[in-house]
Amino acid sequence: MAEPAETIDGWYSLHDFRTFDWAAWKRVPAEERGQIVAEFKEMIEDWMHNEERGEGSYALYSIVGQKADIMFMLLRPTMQELNEIENAFNQTRFAEFTIPSYSYVSVVELGKYMYRGDGDPLDDPGIRERVFPVLPKWEHICFYPMDKKREGEDNWYMTPAKERGQMMYSHGMVGRKYAGKVKQVITGSVGFDDWEWGVTLFAHDVLQFKKLVYEMRFDEVSARFADFGSFYVGNVLTLEDVDFYFKAR
Amino acid sequence: MAEPAETIDGWYSLHDFRTFDWAAWKRVPAEERGQIVAEFKEMIEDWMHNEERGEGSYALYSIVGQKADIMFMLLRPTMQELNEIENAFNQTRFAEFTIPSYSYVSVVELGKYMYRGDGDPLDDPGIRERVFPVLPKWEHICFYPMDKKREGEDNWYMTPAKERGQMMYSHGMVGRKYAGKVKQVITGSVGFDDWEWGVTLFAHDVLQFKKLVYEMRFDEVSARFADFGSFYVGNVLTLEDVDFYFKAR
Amino acid sequence: MAEPAETIDGWYSLHDFRTFDWAAWKRVPAEERGQIVAEFKEMIEDWMHNEERGEGSYALYSIVGQKADIMFMLLRPTMQELNEIENAFNQTRFAEFTIPSYSYVSVVELGKYMYRGDGDPLDDPGIRERVFPVLPKWEHICFYPMDKKREGEDNWYMTPAKERGQMMYSHGMVGRKYAGKVKQVITGSVGFDDWEWGVTLFAHDVLQFKKLVYEMRFDEVSARFADFGSFYVGNVLTLEDVDFYFKAR
Amino acid sequence: MAEPAETIDGWYSLHDFRTFDWAAWKRVPAEERGQIVAEFKEMIEDWMHNEERGEGSYALYSIVGQKADIMFMLLRPTMQELNEIENAFNQTRFAEFTIPSYSYVSVVELGKYMYRGDGDPLDDPGIRERVFPVLPKWEHICFYPMDKKREGEDNWYMTPAKERGQMMYSHGMVGRKYAGKVKQVITGSVGFDDWEWGVTLFAHDVLQFKKLVYEMRFDEVSARFADFGSFYVGNVLTLEDVDFYFKAR
Amino acid sequence: MAEPAETIDGWYSLHDFRTFDWAAWKRVPAEERGQIVAEFKEMIEDWMHNEERGEGSYALYSIVGQKADIMFMLLRPTMQELNEIENAFNQTRFAEFTIPSYSYVSVVELGKYMYRGDGDPLDDPGIRERVFPVLPKWEHICFYPMDKKREGEDNWYMTPAKERGQMMYSHGMVGRKYAGKVKQVITGSVGFDDWEWGVTLFAHDVLQFKKLVYEMRFDEVSARFADFGSFYVGNVLTLEDVDFYFKAR
Repeated sequence: MAEPAETIDGWYSLHDFRTFDWAAWKRVPAEERGQIVAEFKEMIEDWMHNEERGEGSYALYSIVGQKADIMFMLLRPTMQELNEIENAFNQTRFAEFTIPSYSYVSVVELGKYMYRGDGDPLDDPGIRERVFPVLPKWEHICFYPMDKKREGEDNWYMTPAKERGQMMYSHGMVGRKYAGKVKQVITGSVGFDDWEWGVTLFAHDVLQFKKLVYEMRFDEVSARFADFGSFYVGNVLTLEDVDFYFKAR
Repeated sequence: MAEPAETIDGWYSLHDFRTFDWAAWKRVPAEERGQIVAEFKEMIEDWMHNEERGEGSYALYSIVGQKADIMFMLLRPTMQELNEIENAFNQTRFAEFTIPSYSYVSVVELGKYMYRGDGDPLDDPGIRERVFPVLPKWEHICFYPMDKKREGEDNWYMTPAKERGQMMYSHGMVGRKYAGKVKQVITGSVGFDDWEWGVTLFAHDVLQFKKLVYEMRFDEVSARFADFGSFYVGNVLTLEDVDFYFKAR
Repeated sequence: MAEPAETIDGWYSLHDFRTFDWAAWKRVPAEERGQIVAEFKEMIEDWMHNEERGEGSYALYSIVGQKADIMFMLLRPTMQELNEIENAFNQTRFAEFTIPSYSYVSVVELGKYMYRGDGDPLDDPGIRERVFPVLPKWEHICFYPMDKKREGEDNWYMTPAKERGQMMYSHGMVGRKYAGKVKQVITGSVGFDDWEWGVTLFAHDVLQFKKLVYEMRFDEVSARFADFGSFYVGNVLTLEDVDFYFKAR
Repeated sequence: MAEPAETIDGWYSLHDFRTFDWAAWKRVPAEERGQIVAEFKEMIEDWMHNEERGEGSYALYSIVGQKADIMFMLLRPTMQELNEIENAFNQTRFAEFTIPSYSYVSVVELGKYMYRGDGDPLDDPGIRERVFPVLPKWEHICFYPMDKKREGEDNWYMTPAKERGQMMYSHGMVGRKYAGKVKQVITGSVGFDDWEWGVTLFAHDVLQFKKLVYEMRFDEVSARFADFGSFYVGNVLTLEDVDFYFKAR
Repeated sequence: MAEPAETIDGWYSLHDFRTFDWAAWKRVPAEERGQIVAEFKEMIEDWMHNEERGEGSYALYSIVGQKADIMFMLLRPTMQELNEIENAFNQTRFAEFTIPSYSYVSVVELGKYMYRGDGDPLDDPGIRERVFPVLPKWEHICFYPMDKKREGEDNWYMTPAKERGQMMYSHGMVGRKYAGKVKQVITGSVGFDDWEWGVTLFAHDVLQFKKLVYEMRFDEVSARFADFGSFYVGNVLTLEDVDFYFKAR
């Protein structure tokens, strides 16, 4: 029996993608639309205050293409809090103009091999920063879920731990070349959602996503073992952008 | 011809996942909403009384993410009773605010190798408890359906019975490490639904689902032979939670 | 070139699965609902009279789970009559409350190896009974479509006829063990629908479906060569059940 | 580099499948329905006149099962004309009661090996008849799209031209046995639609579709290399049938 | 570790496919429809002016078959501008009559092996013309997304760079035979969308798409390694065509 790689797990995570119903929105009188956007912005401000208190984090982006119009990503200490956020969002009037298009439930995860210490890794401030992260508000986001394949000769879970370790190390080296250009948050969803991992990337220059993901595709770990879901790419939405984005001209 | 593993079968089971139509719900006057929720709670109380009489069991959870808002799981002695429950639910006003998102029809199942006795396994109280279970009302639920693969060299049904037995034994050993942390109910659906088995897990700490399912993925029986459907994760809904969850603020 | 197994073909067959729109139904006044159900029952009585005249057969079942609420299966001498039945159903007011969820078009089929005689197999009363069957009105129905695989080494259509014959014979032996418990109707749909065959099973005890299908899965013909579609399981609907099922309480 | 088989291409082709909205239709007053059907029949008569002038061809069939209610197939000299037909259809009131369910865009195609002459094959009257065909109005239609596989050892496009030629020849021999019983029109859609070819069959006796397609499945070219899409089967709709079919009783 | 082929990247690209809601459109009074079309044409004229200024490019086509009615392709220097175009389109009244059917987000891309110079390839005017192209307004468009396979022995990303280079070279030779007949724009979407590349072809004679794509399918790089998505084919829409196309007769 192969020894599974252990993980260090942090905050629970919800990615929520929504399409906006512009036709219905435009039928609402301008003043009412203003109130609805104001209510939505209050919710975002709550998320900001939560982040300032160190009790979670958030990201808000518009998505390019028809897959979704907006997405938010929320980190919280418990799965119940994620449910409460969904519930609170559904209670808003803003929610009535959105159509769910995709969601992903996971937990921020770090491979245990990242920790060389003796005690509880969660006592290490460097580790804490990575599993309880403040999500960057960089210009662009890229998200995709993935599995490790179990097909014939390309079966990750039947591969000896040592080989897996070496492949992951090479893979990590590619990522390191993009330090400062791309910030990466890995979340695990085995037992929580249909894919095994979610990769959320942040960048100032959107082209860096393409360069990074394409370079990694030639790594053995991706080339032979990675199965990818849908890719989402987006632009950051600040509080001010929200006003602009949802004004109806 | 390989000898099929026989099974001990207990109660029939229905998993029913539903999305809630919040926009329609909020258009209903508050007083009427109160009546509708009260009617829904009466139905849950019927399920509770049925469970107290030992004639079945139930579970009610909210689901995290967009796949569904709520799910219920019901165990009954006959397939007709499952149909009657569906029919009764559809007659409620509450049902009008729900959109079906997924269901799974099966029967609680135990591998016959679990029973070492001579007579009818259903006369054994330990066996009865497992195939006519009282579903735990623990904080979290995880559900996923699965198949055993029949692909090229990885064909479970062409594998000799002895090898299958050994792999299942190792697999069981992993599960045993989680005793007290995760309670597992296996239901079989060959001939009833699109997947061969459904796995329903209950835990106090939701992270245990991830640890258990991830550890098992390295077992040969999962690594080579398991094909998984969608994963659903949720938080328990008590009668009191129902009031809170469906109040419209 | 392998010699294809020839078939003896009988009545054309339509399986029609429908979801019921309970919300719309409940908005109809009780008296009108009564008229609509009466009209639907008249159509079923037409099907019964057709069956009594030996000009076809029918089955009517409620389906467990969200895949459908009801299904009917109709056998007729021509493809045009199946179209007329669809058309007549669509003209009823009852049809307006149903949403199509799945259909399957095929013809009752028997492998020619089942017939040892010299002349036209359709002159043999035993054969006639099997390809122009009266569908049983037993308590439960199970339906699933299937293909024979053509994947790498597991290619049914590249397998020598003799091997195919031996595998089908073993397969038949398993079925024979369930005589009296499960009645099976095989329909072929090559050239008519997306799958190659449909299997419709009837039983008094629903658990027999699971036992039969599970046991067969270990046969080489299923283990290596069968590709299955969705499985549907249901409970019989008599004329009286129709009244009960569609009353709105 | 394998030498591709060249093709002789004729008229462009549109297959258009539609589901009919009976509930909406029945809400229209009878007189208005009459006008709408008359307008639809005028369009069909335009198609007939076009066919009489030798400038294209058409077929109109009702489809059995829930995949669609009606389908039309239109042949025209240019892709623009197909677009204009779609546009004209969408302008009719009849179109408002139809829901698109599937379409297929292609061009009538003949393998160049069918032509032994020296000059332009399109100067040969026998060839012209086949790539600019008058579609038969026989009792039944069968349509399915298909690909040639490119999977591991079963890669059509990596197979030497000579082997491909031999397999296609055997395949053609099976088809020839059904001369007079089944008329076949092959259309190619590489670069136009999701599948590589579409097969449209016409027969007086619908069972001949099953016999032909099943027999061909044992040919190596189908057994090893064919990937099939959905199968549609239908009954011819004459102008008179249109009146009957769309009357609301 | 295989050395990834580097790319030269130009303008960001959005392909947007939409279905038109004719039934809703016909309910709008003729005068109002005129205003809505005029507003839509103003937007197209903005796209034209942008192209004249060399700040991007556009294409507008009608699509044949039910997959979509119209498509537009837009090239812009930043991902934000693509989002702004979507947003501006959604604000128009015309957008209310369209239903999104497919979109594709990418960036115009050139393999670096196309550039033999020393400095920044983007300083080379020949290169600039190809990655900042003016999209042709030729009669026909063909679009399809694609991946390079990673299946067993057919794993593009595990293939040595030299072999990949040779296969790409042969592939390019086929394309060159169609110079003047077919104009090709390759866009890359690794990290941006679900497929790795998008191929957009323009032609005066629509049959050239079929000839080119079919011939290429016999190249090893396509035969063994290409995985194709949906194919879309269409006819050009000029400003004048827009008037004709969306008039309601």
